[in-house]
Amino acid sequence: MIETAHPGANAAPSKSEAARATLARLLDAAVHVIRSKGYSAARVEDICAEAGLTKGAFFHHFASKEACAIAAAAHFAANADAVFDAAPYAGFADPRARVLGYVDFRKAILRGDLPQFTCLLGTMVQEAYDSHPAIRAACDRYIGEHAARVEADLAAAKAIYAPDATWNPSSAARFSQAVLQGAFILAKARHGPEAGAECLDHLRRYFEILLPEGATGTGRNP
Amino acid sequence: MIETAHPGANAAPSKSEAARATLARLLDAAVHVIRSKGYSAARVEDICAEAGLTKGAFFHHFASKEACAIAAAAHFAANADAVFDAAPYAGFADPRARVLGYVDFRKAILRGDLPQFTCLLGTMVQEAYDSHPAIRAACDRYIGEHAARVEADLAAAKAIYAPDATWNPSSAARFSQAVLQGAFILAKARHGPEAGAECLDHLRRYFEILLPEGATGTGRNP
Repeated sequence: MIETAHPGANAAPSKSEAARATLARLLDAAVHVIRSKGYSAARVEDICAEAGLTKGAFFHHFASKEACAIAAAAHFAANADAVFDAAPYAGFADPRARVLGYVDFRKAILRGDLPQFTCLLGTMVQEAYDSHPAIRAACDRYIGEHAARVEADLAAAKAIYAPDATWNPSSAARFSQAVLQGAFILAKARHGPEAGAECLDHLRRYFEILLPEGATGTGRNP
Repeated sequence: MIETAHPGANAAPSKSEAARATLARLLDAAVHVIRSKGYSAARVEDICAEAGLTKGAFFHHFASKEACAIAAAAHFAANADAVFDAAPYAGFADPRARVLGYVDFRKAILRGDLPQFTCLLGTMVQEAYDSHPAIRAACDRYIGEHAARVEADLAAAKAIYAPDATWNPSSAARFSQAVLQGAFILAKARHGPEAGAECLDHLRRYFEILLPEGATGTGRNP
């Protein structure tokens, strides 16, 4: 390798790249530890151990565990956005197919260990809703933003398949998030994904009924 | 007051009555504190302060905070059973009316402060599912027992209104519990009951569709 006047440019990550990598490791670790045992039980030491980093590194990036949790919520939501953007259903032309494809995709990723498929946001807000208002606000924001993605497809599908029906796409989208959050709780209680998966079958049936396939173009109110 | 050979019988609660009252105060306090800030954040000191009792009293009744939480889960479930047994819908003759009445009743009691209407079981299992297997097992048991009550009415209603439909009353009952648990999370995220209430409107619509009123006696598959 040729030595250059800027030895850091190719031989090693720049300082800011290294800092970004450290931050990402801390955030990934925070997501994993909090999903494993909740916000209150997750100690800064646990997050550092999971990341393989020191408390010095932690407090270089975060003023507190709460600040880390709020950043972890944003990190979790951004990762989720990327996953759903890249999912096959996102490319379906028919919005009804996207709605049902979303539910199918959520069911398909409901597997593996519980900390891998459960929701950081629901886990944190469950216990911290009153004691940590900034965590509550972050969870509310990102749950709401994800629901808005589902709402867009529900609204487009309703315009085609159930234009005169009285149900509200925004409310139905929030309902889908409640079903998912509840599915995670039942999966945790049973300590396996199956109890959650069957809930998504019911959600799919409900959306199939709200968006009757045969009604295309008829304007019929189901 | 006449002195008797058993002075404790009328003049003051007997020792066992006093012990039962102390236990009930500790359990009520544990339910409130854990619903307010989660299992891990709830300290024995917090539970004692809420109950107005000493740590000596606490450890007279419980070997540990975990033992108290498990007893609190049983206490919470027994209180819930009493509430649902006494609810007006429980006396409806028609099982479909009992199913819909259950959802309406759950919506009606979704008010007041969040620690008053949210679920101790879902709150605890959310964070303790892996770190405290005995708490997970208790939450699973009592969530399952409550679902079985709903299943009984769903099965009776299905036999009349949708005998040939392929949905499973046991699974539909568990779905109702997922919706409720998710409704609590959305209510916590929004810090008010309304976000939960609209989820129960969707659950009611789903059950109305699963149990079509016009199908009575026809054996028609909806």
